[in-house]
Amino acid sequence: MEYIYPLQKLIEKFASLKGVGRKTAERYAFNVMAMSEEEAGEFADAIREAKEKVKPCRVCGNYTDSDLCPICSDDRRDKTVVCVVEDTKAVIAIEKTREFNGLYHVLGGVLSPSNGMGPDQIRLGELLSRLEEKTIKELIIATNPDVDGETTALYISRLAQPYGVKTTRLAYGVPVGASLEYADQATLMRALDGRREI
Amino acid sequence: MEYIYPLQKLIEKFASLKGVGRKTAERYAFNVMAMSEEEAGEFADAIREAKEKVKPCRVCGNYTDSDLCPICSDDRRDKTVVCVVEDTKAVIAIEKTREFNGLYHVLGGVLSPSNGMGPDQIRLGELLSRLEEKTIKELIIATNPDVDGETTALYISRLAQPYGVKTTRLAYGVPVGASLEYADQATLMRALDGRREI
Repeated sequence: MEYIYPLQKLIEKFASLKGVGRKTAERYAFNVMAMSEEEAGEFADAIREAKEKVKPCRVCGNYTDSDLCPICSDDRRDKTVVCVVEDTKAVIAIEKTREFNGLYHVLGGVLSPSNGMGPDQIRLGELLSRLEEKTIKELIIATNPDVDGETTALYISRLAQPYGVKTTRLAYGVPVGASLEYADQATLMRALDGRREI
Repeated sequence: MEYIYPLQKLIEKFASLKGVGRKTAERYAFNVMAMSEEEAGEFADAIREAKEKVKPCRVCGNYTDSDLCPICSDDRRDKTVVCVVEDTKAVIAIEKTREFNGLYHVLGGVLSPSNGMGPDQIRLGELLSRLEEKTIKELIIATNPDVDGETTALYISRLAQPYGVKTTRLAYGVPVGASLEYADQATLMRALDGRREI
């Protein structure tokens, strides 16, 4: 026997989230059932609105609710240095250090042949367009310090070579094999300071 | 720095679910952002519809999308035996054993003075109304085998005494201190077989 249909469906929706098993999905669904109609409505709206209103920034690919993200549209930021990251979570992590005043380029993934992620699946074309404009003097490649992240970093450094920009990589202050979003601020600061040319 | 507002709000909604921390909420929100507009819309609808369409059954309190739940409206079920449980999860767990052919009464909680759960906070009045009808011959009290569950079982057995119904408790095949929904089917079957009069 299963739950009554609309409840069963909600459980399945929660279970479709990565890392959520059946029991956890049930728990979340019962949590929703225990909410007031208003709270549940707000939750539903939050999903819909985040999906409808939040889009990638036209320039850097960071999540934004307008054409340009707050960082790209901030005149006080140094437009000659661009930090290349895998996703918005990495942007948030680096912004928290308050050590970086340049712009970002969010790839939306990394090169990973085994996962079917080739150069066309991540925002490399957009990066080339930005390099074409000749205002960028340095690319800090801050992909995660794992195999795919390293491969992507190397690939980008070669891509950038014809443009004569300095390409640097975050220093190995970041623990190898870990995910950037879990690095503490001190580690990230040291990693920014000790960045080396590729 | 925080995420752009609609995304930040979605993260907070996920974080409002019991047992979901900040990092997990972020992960879920990014999962939603990676969904197609259609998938995200379905997720939002699932929350709204489960909350709007699923209500407690008028008789037993089990979740249903009509006036009576499928169990209460099933003529083949034995209406003289009622199994009293804490929540719908326990109904599903017992139904899976296929050993029980009676009806249910879902309390929607247990007596727990420390959590402010008194007799008026759970569906005891509704249970008394059912006992008044004099068709019930046995109450199987299947609250969880923990302190609050035991207290509630004892309370109900006293409440039922004037009506001359037999009150039984699931046998201690269920591991003490555990939650009913995690019991395996074999254990639950033995617990049903070995039920004792209180």
